[in-house]
Amino acid sequence: MKRYKITFSYDGSLFAGYQTQPGLRTVQGEMEDALKVINNNKRVTLNASGRTDALVHAKGQVAHADIDVSITPYKLKRALNTYTSDDIHVMDVEEVDTSFHARYNVKSKEYEYIINLGEYNVHERNYVYQACHSLDIDKMKEGLSYLKGKHDFRAFVSESKEKENCVRTITSCKIYKDKIDNDKYHIYFKGTGFLKYQIRNMVGTLIRIGEGKMDPSNIKNILESKDRGKAGRTAPPEGLYLLRVNY
Amino acid sequence: MKRYKITFSYDGSLFAGYQTQPGLRTVQGEMEDALKVINNNKRVTLNASGRTDALVHAKGQVAHADIDVSITPYKLKRALNTYTSDDIHVMDVEEVDTSFHARYNVKSKEYEYIINLGEYNVHERNYVYQACHSLDIDKMKEGLSYLKGKHDFRAFVSESKEKENCVRTITSCKIYKDKIDNDKYHIYFKGTGFLKYQIRNMVGTLIRIGEGKMDPSNIKNILESKDRGKAGRTAPPEGLYLLRVNY
Repeated sequence: MKRYKITFSYDGSLFAGYQTQPGLRTVQGEMEDALKVINNNKRVTLNASGRTDALVHAKGQVAHADIDVSITPYKLKRALNTYTSDDIHVMDVEEVDTSFHARYNVKSKEYEYIINLGEYNVHERNYVYQACHSLDIDKMKEGLSYLKGKHDFRAFVSESKEKENCVRTITSCKIYKDKIDNDKYHIYFKGTGFLKYQIRNMVGTLIRIGEGKMDPSNIKNILESKDRGKAGRTAPPEGLYLLRVNY
Repeated sequence: MKRYKITFSYDGSLFAGYQTQPGLRTVQGEMEDALKVINNNKRVTLNASGRTDALVHAKGQVAHADIDVSITPYKLKRALNTYTSDDIHVMDVEEVDTSFHARYNVKSKEYEYIINLGEYNVHERNYVYQACHSLDIDKMKEGLSYLKGKHDFRAFVSESKEKENCVRTITSCKIYKDKIDNDKYHIYFKGTGFLKYQIRNMVGTLIRIGEGKMDPSNIKNILESKDRGKAGRTAPPEGLYLLRVNY
């Protein structure tokens, strides 16, 4: 048995999320089906750095898997890209020590959320949130500054998680204009870890600020309140990308 | 009755091409269904500048339609965007004189073909041809230079068109690197008109040149031969965009 670290991307558009769900097409399900074929028809569990929601994308998800048959990392990469659909792509496979765990060993994760403020773009409708109205980016930048650092993010987390420890640290975040398309903005987050819906709830709140419906400094009160009802709506999934997982 | 010039974009991924075909989902079919609803349930013909093949995209297709009911261009735009699916988007509607014809009055058309030479990109698999191997861009540029100007493009046209006049003029063409992604290249064509499969056959031939399997100057011989068998394979549809139609 050898353990492999697998770095892969996927287009979330046609998946019911990352995690296996009976009867639904999921990234984990598709990857584990491929791994089973490779592993002489013996089931393999794929342990990812974390889940992504339905329709959310990954440019650099990381997972580990233990495989019984003897196979080189290069051949494993090729076999996975052969046996999975064209909306999953394995970029890198490396053999790792069995002490490596794709979820427990995460040091930080990086995400970006992309918004189009200009004319509706048919070709990017599944890859960029088509807000299609102007937003006050300077106010959003101010609001974002209050999210940086170590906070209890309970107010930005789905309510089912109410018993969990919601203290996380955002080590870096920024909003920047797309290099080609002046109407497109990227909101970047790097942190020690993120809770379910946290980024989409933070982005939804920043959008409210950008629309002039909330003052940027309100972010401080929302964090303190720990009340999900005070934050903005959950931003749509199609704008969100898991960029990188660092170990 | 008033005539309207309609400028629209579409994502070709889920369409069996532009032109209506019984039992298949087409751009024209979808647009004409919407126009019928708007026109008090009376059928309207949409006359486009030209067809695009299955899976080919448009950023700026133009068509005209004659509508009996009284409606402002702004409301027609809104109604079309309401009644069509989210992979069609009308950008502009203007009332025009009945002497305007979207096909006969075309002065020039602009297309681009996008190729990725780098790692397979899941998120762009339906929007950029994933060649995923290096090409000699300088040689392709040289080959492209021989296509510029007025030529009989018979050798680059699907064989079913053999009786047609295939003389066309390419007034401008270039290959340039994407501003963000160094592995991505855009091949741009502007001309008085293009024949069925002409751009994809020219691109397929340029790819052969980029692969070192053909000398750039061979383009001259291929044009002179008027023999489809001498040109390269038809490049895949997903990399091709109709950018603009000029009147």
